[in-house]
Amino acid sequence: MTVTIGRLTLASPLILGTGGARRLDDIEAAVVASGASVATVAIRRYQPGASSVYDVLARHHVTPLPNTAGAHSAHEAIVLAELAREALGVDWVKLEVVIDDRTLLPDPLELVRATEALSTRGFDVLAYTNDDPATARLVERAGAVAVMPLASPIGSGLGIQNPRNLEAIVADAGVPVVVDAGIGAPSDAALALELGADAVLVASAIMRAEDPAVMARAIALAVEAGALARRAGRIPAQPLAVASSPVEGLPNVSL
Amino acid sequence: MTVTIGRLTLASPLILGTGGARRLDDIEAAVVASGASVATVAIRRYQPGASSVYDVLARHHVTPLPNTAGAHSAHEAIVLAELAREALGVDWVKLEVVIDDRTLLPDPLELVRATEALSTRGFDVLAYTNDDPATARLVERAGAVAVMPLASPIGSGLGIQNPRNLEAIVADAGVPVVVDAGIGAPSDAALALELGADAVLVASAIMRAEDPAVMARAIALAVEAGALARRAGRIPAQPLAVASSPVEGLPNVSL
Amino acid sequence: MTVTIGRLTLASPLILGTGGARRLDDIEAAVVASGASVATVAIRRYQPGASSVYDVLARHHVTPLPNTAGAHSAHEAIVLAELAREALGVDWVKLEVVIDDRTLLPDPLELVRATEALSTRGFDVLAYTNDDPATARLVERAGAVAVMPLASPIGSGLGIQNPRNLEAIVADAGVPVVVDAGIGAPSDAALALELGADAVLVASAIMRAEDPAVMARAIALAVEAGALARRAGRIPAQPLAVASSPVEGLPNVSL
Amino acid sequence: MTVTIGRLTLASPLILGTGGARRLDDIEAAVVASGASVATVAIRRYQPGASSVYDVLARHHVTPLPNTAGAHSAHEAIVLAELAREALGVDWVKLEVVIDDRTLLPDPLELVRATEALSTRGFDVLAYTNDDPATARLVERAGAVAVMPLASPIGSGLGIQNPRNLEAIVADAGVPVVVDAGIGAPSDAALALELGADAVLVASAIMRAEDPAVMARAIALAVEAGALARRAGRIPAQPLAVASSPVEGLPNVSL
Repeated sequence: MTVTIGRLTLASPLILGTGGARRLDDIEAAVVASGASVATVAIRRYQPGASSVYDVLARHHVTPLPNTAGAHSAHEAIVLAELAREALGVDWVKLEVVIDDRTLLPDPLELVRATEALSTRGFDVLAYTNDDPATARLVERAGAVAVMPLASPIGSGLGIQNPRNLEAIVADAGVPVVVDAGIGAPSDAALALELGADAVLVASAIMRAEDPAVMARAIALAVEAGALARRAGRIPAQPLAVASSPVEGLPNVSL
Repeated sequence: MTVTIGRLTLASPLILGTGGARRLDDIEAAVVASGASVATVAIRRYQPGASSVYDVLARHHVTPLPNTAGAHSAHEAIVLAELAREALGVDWVKLEVVIDDRTLLPDPLELVRATEALSTRGFDVLAYTNDDPATARLVERAGAVAVMPLASPIGSGLGIQNPRNLEAIVADAGVPVVVDAGIGAPSDAALALELGADAVLVASAIMRAEDPAVMARAIALAVEAGALARRAGRIPAQPLAVASSPVEGLPNVSL
Repeated sequence: MTVTIGRLTLASPLILGTGGARRLDDIEAAVVASGASVATVAIRRYQPGASSVYDVLARHHVTPLPNTAGAHSAHEAIVLAELAREALGVDWVKLEVVIDDRTLLPDPLELVRATEALSTRGFDVLAYTNDDPATARLVERAGAVAVMPLASPIGSGLGIQNPRNLEAIVADAGVPVVVDAGIGAPSDAALALELGADAVLVASAIMRAEDPAVMARAIALAVEAGALARRAGRIPAQPLAVASSPVEGLPNVSL
Repeated sequence: MTVTIGRLTLASPLILGTGGARRLDDIEAAVVASGASVATVAIRRYQPGASSVYDVLARHHVTPLPNTAGAHSAHEAIVLAELAREALGVDWVKLEVVIDDRTLLPDPLELVRATEALSTRGFDVLAYTNDDPATARLVERAGAVAVMPLASPIGSGLGIQNPRNLEAIVADAGVPVVVDAGIGAPSDAALALELGADAVLVASAIMRAEDPAVMARAIALAVEAGALARRAGRIPAQPLAVASSPVEGLPNVSL
């Protein structure tokens, strides 16, 4: 159940976010429990060394996906992305350009600008965006290899606030769609996949759970469930009751 | 992750419903893929034999849980339950008493009556009820070993229409709560467990999916995810954005 | 826009609840601002006199609708209803039989019993019930002249938690449907009417608002809006965008 | 209950949209029934004359608010706005720049560009935007005198899909917020005001209703209800039941 995004290959439809972790041990435990092969790291806080998050990821053969957390403009995001390329030797970046530090919502204008610039510079840009289908389209046109609409604000755990928007983004997108931000529980993650997302990125819901490792495992199972359900073809949701039991044991199939 | 309900033990928080199946093969495939150790069968259509649903369940060591589908009164339900005990040699019954064949909604009065009568006769009664917390309480008082509130009408696939009611039922119940009817997808099943249900019963969502076996596996993963999430302690859902990435790499943990 | 319920006639689709009022003045102001011609009073606290709620209602020619608040059994409810008939000389009663004082949810069994008994004794029974369509049907069969499903728990202000249930109750009912309990704001009241309810009963949302008189007026306008909308035939809700402006100025109508 | 937006004054919190009308008579009837003092017109279809929409509005002393429906770029929107100023002699414009004719969603980049340009040229710009709080802020910074977030896609009648976003926009905005697009019924319009919007713009829900005049009246009542409710201070929504009736008849107020 691998997912390919530009030059990145995910072993499963889950990208692990390391933001919000209380302890390095929690990150390590979550890495193991989630089975994720890609994890984001905030390049702004880059600090290599034996007991860093980079070391943990390397030890478990997890590919680092640097993010530009902290950037408030295209310019700042570009600087951070170049720094990441230099430091980590990777050509991919999770692009975040927020409008302020309170809401942490993406700034659509700076986002599109940065996506264009970084794509031109040879980056695979995975762009964190709002859940507006028009903005997602502009980000894709600007060269993003993945659009990453939020489910709800970062760290809110509110789940998918506007499922219709997510469905519209999926219907339109020519690149993978990764739901990012706002996932609070396995049900949210499963729903994202059921609605057609290719993957989810989960940070706070795992790292801030009481037991990050157990939640990492729970989310990993949920995304697998959601992806399988998409393949299995779910029943339509419909207002009226449809008899299930009365059909049991129909003579012709000798149930 | 076993669940004990009266004298029944579930290997996982999933009871498989066989209603709505198109083919006996689908039931068999779903039994295998779901890993469920208990499955409902409609006693009204009882017809033993080499190619019956009973045979399939026996072959896979799945415990049959007879239901009283088709009963419109306590009297009819009692007759069906006694027939099941006679035929299958089991002391448990999933009690269904519906108000009509169009909505298939439980009749709360007949349900309470039948629960009392069957409990007195030594049955373990798993009672299919609406999602009203007061009705659930009456059913429990009448002797049910499990209350089984609907998520939404049978076969509708609409998922959990009133999560607050489910939470209230869980908070009050002194017996296991099994969400029954209306589950449409893994996300619904995971949510049921996250809200505190002990298990779910899924029939149509699996049997009427395009690929029942794949959906059975998806639902099985989802209930496991939901149960783990309950144990892991999810983050609270809250309106305001909470910084996740900015916390990354705090000096004291050298992320 | 009158509504007829048994021998009662409402001047508008709004019944005013006086429960939860902080001051008698608030009740008087709300009576005037709402234009309601019927208001509930708790007979359990009956205490006639010059500065009682009864006096206020009489002064404004508002018909009192006694309720059986505080009853936990059919027996208690019947006693309260008879007391109301004696004291107020009215043959109608809003029947409340709750399962406990914490949730204040209706006890469906005692409710049906009391409805039968009071109908037989010649009362017009307006029965406060949960939002389960099957329970509503049993209450109607027992003789109620109106079914009064809750939107959400009493005083919660959560609005209509399960609109599909309300629609199902309306579709089935042969008597007026009055949404009772849980209305928090005008939008909830309008929605109840749009979904087909004949009226709403509002107490806490008005009496516990910061300014009860202004909220009474707001709710009165909202129920009128909802009733008009029902008559006007709303547009269907549909996922895809439908051009509105491009249609403007079509040559044939010279817009 | 007037609302001031730049140089425009609304007699009530309702702007009437004329798009989607089937007949000129419907517009006239809706104008009268709604009591709205401002109505949008698509300048692209400008065609003055005795039986035009302009004539209808003039006859009823309704101020025309030209919109740039049909514009797909800032350039096209600017041309249409200048044409409107020329033709109608007004300095205000409802700015629409859509990303395509299927979704009719605003293009955030072209929208911000056009807002800046038109503000510089002396227009009062009322900008139709998505429901993303960050985009709303950019539009306001670009000089808009009102931000007009959508409730849901144009003509969908789906109501407010993301109430939290609307609340966030209201909390941040330094200019009036007018909910535009997606209103389907009075309850939606009331909710918009309850959540803090200053006004709503309604077109399809009125013009495409079976009876536009009656729906216009319904929506007009609903926005008044919502505005009053905002002033009245609604009760908080809370999960647990709060006794209302038991409080009735407290001795100290002799209810």
